[in-house]
Amino acid sequence: LYDVFSGFCRAEQILQDEANLLAYSYDNSRISFKPQIVLLPETEEEIVKTVLACKNSKIPLTVRGRGTATTGAALPTEGGVVLSTERFNKVIDFCPASKYIVVEPGITNQHLQDICKEQNLFWGPNPSSMGFSSVGGNLACNSAGSRSLKYGAARDKTLAVRFVTGEGKIITSGKAVSKQAVGFDFARLIIGSEGMLGIILNATLKLDFLPEQTTTIRVIYKDTRSAGDAIISIMQQTLIPTSLEFLDRHSVALIRDDVDLPPGDEILMLIIEVDGDAAAIKHAIDQVNKAARNSGLLEFMVADSKPAKQKIWQARKALSPKLRKIAPKKINEDVVVPIDKLATLLVGLDRLRAKYAINIVNFGHAGNGNIHVNLLVDPDDEKRVARAAKCLDEIFKLVLKLGGSISGEHGIGLVKRDFLPLELGDNNLELMRKVKSQFDPDNILNPGKLLA
Amino acid sequence: LYDVFSGFCRAEQILQDEANLLAYSYDNSRISFKPQIVLLPETEEEIVKTVLACKNSKIPLTVRGRGTATTGAALPTEGGVVLSTERFNKVIDFCPASKYIVVEPGITNQHLQDICKEQNLFWGPNPSSMGFSSVGGNLACNSAGSRSLKYGAARDKTLAVRFVTGEGKIITSGKAVSKQAVGFDFARLIIGSEGMLGIILNATLKLDFLPEQTTTIRVIYKDTRSAGDAIISIMQQTLIPTSLEFLDRHSVALIRDDVDLPPGDEILMLIIEVDGDAAAIKHAIDQVNKAARNSGLLEFMVADSKPAKQKIWQARKALSPKLRKIAPKKINEDVVVPIDKLATLLVGLDRLRAKYAINIVNFGHAGNGNIHVNLLVDPDDEKRVARAAKCLDEIFKLVLKLGGSISGEHGIGLVKRDFLPLELGDNNLELMRKVKSQFDPDNILNPGKLLA
Repeated sequence: LYDVFSGFCRAEQILQDEANLLAYSYDNSRISFKPQIVLLPETEEEIVKTVLACKNSKIPLTVRGRGTATTGAALPTEGGVVLSTERFNKVIDFCPASKYIVVEPGITNQHLQDICKEQNLFWGPNPSSMGFSSVGGNLACNSAGSRSLKYGAARDKTLAVRFVTGEGKIITSGKAVSKQAVGFDFARLIIGSEGMLGIILNATLKLDFLPEQTTTIRVIYKDTRSAGDAIISIMQQTLIPTSLEFLDRHSVALIRDDVDLPPGDEILMLIIEVDGDAAAIKHAIDQVNKAARNSGLLEFMVADSKPAKQKIWQARKALSPKLRKIAPKKINEDVVVPIDKLATLLVGLDRLRAKYAINIVNFGHAGNGNIHVNLLVDPDDEKRVARAAKCLDEIFKLVLKLGGSISGEHGIGLVKRDFLPLELGDNNLELMRKVKSQFDPDNILNPGKLLA
Repeated sequence: LYDVFSGFCRAEQILQDEANLLAYSYDNSRISFKPQIVLLPETEEEIVKTVLACKNSKIPLTVRGRGTATTGAALPTEGGVVLSTERFNKVIDFCPASKYIVVEPGITNQHLQDICKEQNLFWGPNPSSMGFSSVGGNLACNSAGSRSLKYGAARDKTLAVRFVTGEGKIITSGKAVSKQAVGFDFARLIIGSEGMLGIILNATLKLDFLPEQTTTIRVIYKDTRSAGDAIISIMQQTLIPTSLEFLDRHSVALIRDDVDLPPGDEILMLIIEVDGDAAAIKHAIDQVNKAARNSGLLEFMVADSKPAKQKIWQARKALSPKLRKIAPKKINEDVVVPIDKLATLLVGLDRLRAKYAINIVNFGHAGNGNIHVNLLVDPDDEKRVARAAKCLDEIFKLVLKLGGSISGEHGIGLVKRDFLPLELGDNNLELMRKVKSQFDPDNILNPGKLLA
């Protein structure tokens, strides 16, 4: 394949050695598919020429940010080219006065935030991978994060997208303005399409001003139902918290030794962050306090210092390493339900936990109804793995029955592809295929994902 | 055509008399195209059967809300059926706990707001037609309004859309959750597509809690540049005003006799609304005050009572009747530019005003950079009408040069259709046509709009 691309890429932009092919073969799903070749384009022109070359020779072309997805979305299941955006990462325009920035997709989320911070601005989406993940990957997967409760997911915080189709045609959809009514909204269609409709050349991102301060609150409940009621009450106000995270009773049990906690086997924890200036924060704490109080409340603690704040978050952060230690190949889902159904979902998960005798631990973004459901299964225990698959099937069905969705922020990729028909139905999938055929008639862009 | 629909619609749901055909032939663009027949379906089943009947007999099918668009978007340019949603207007589900409501498209915006208000909630979009316009029309055109600065346009405030394609296939895109990463975002593609891709069967709308209070502030500047600087400064903070409206010097001149104003031929007016509880409002006024002050400021007035508030808005409201009196067929555009380009646009509009000797009056949603540009032209003065057309062409080119868009909230329809290629380019239009061909292969849905 080298000759197909050497006409417009320098030799050092083309990787073919085994070590590199392996390095670009996997993501955080730990599934691996080796590409035939890896390209590191630096310009729009090189990307368009790559698309045309792949189209003419019918070579699969999979775009890759930093490979942090948990779903296998950027893996070259059918071989061919992996196009890594790591060198296509310039800032094209930054306009603090109109609160937007135009960037190429290879820039990392953290680098973007660092640039914005110099002007007291930030971009809303903060996936836990933000230190390393690329903005292009965040857009392709409609990534979110804890503060998206107040500051939106990728789709909410993008004004325009410039992309190239599978036919090599360049299209810009959207403008650097906060409202528009011109033509079809291809920008938001590209966002979340997991690289199947086009390659993002640059994106105009909508920025917000950094809040003056943030404060963290820890609230403990004696049982699931009272925590569920409190979540609804807290969200039932004009105040929108920056974050409203939760740890279920099984999560709390895991970190009990590391964190100061009141006694009780059934206790749940909420971690709430509010932001604003000093006066606004004081008022927000009062509002949260009033809404959080019910007969199941055991503790309401406001972090009065930076160490106290860190101590609260440490509980949440201690959880993931703990889980990885117990079950290095845990199944981590990210289902989402309307928040009034959250307590019902948690009760249902407890039922499935007992039915399948699988350790299920739940935590996540309660303010969005978005729960990371972790099935702790030893991959070498075949019986248990088979049970987990059945259990997962029931979890997804329960989520859909409650009006929810099988992914709040991780996306579909390979790992949830088979569950997509369950959520979307035949008509939707058929229309997705038809639309895909117009953006990419030769099916070269990330083939084999989403649509089986 | 009666027999095509009488199998599944009652006689009184089918209108064919001249008076009714005329009543359903025009919108607020004052252009008129008579349909052959008007249908008033009441159920999803009747709508799907109508689509299938039109598809089988190749009859054009134009969906109409309440006909308040200014662009001719819902006019049956090719005759056939007008499907009015006026009787398809039920509330399907209302969940205050999760802050969403599911409604059929025929419900009026005002009726929706009245229902939401009972639970202290509201839907963001507030087009000036809201007393009468339908939610379906608001969605089809991605309508906004003055408070969309803080509370979003239709596309920002919709969680899911259920629609039927031109082939009669029913598809639901989205869920009643605030974040999701599953499949292509057809919901946002349908919103703003002006009835060309599908007929909305119902929509799940994202609601906000009503603020405790709102306060109105009037600020006067001595010239365009200082007002432009103030708009940027006001938006350059964490505070997001509910509205940030402006009247240019020509607008102010028109209402001078009706409103108390400081002297000066060049003065401009900003009207700013902030909301929250008493403490938040006090703080917001301080923030606006600090940001609004520059050497061009002539007056900063906070409405301290309901009458004072009404008096400020009265200035804005007096303007439209005044304009209609001077020029009953004024050309009303709604261009939008990044807010740092607003002052440059206004200066450019003054230049074109002089060049073409046309009275141009500008006001609108300054916080979004969205300006209603009014060309006051007597339609019987042929020379002036021709000059106005050339002037409009230059206005759109100026807007695009400044990185803006030819419509912020009114949409394209018939009246701006010929300017669409200027903004979107050939590749985008070609892709729009291709996507349209997949949603509606027989081109029965609102033919002749957007794409010539």
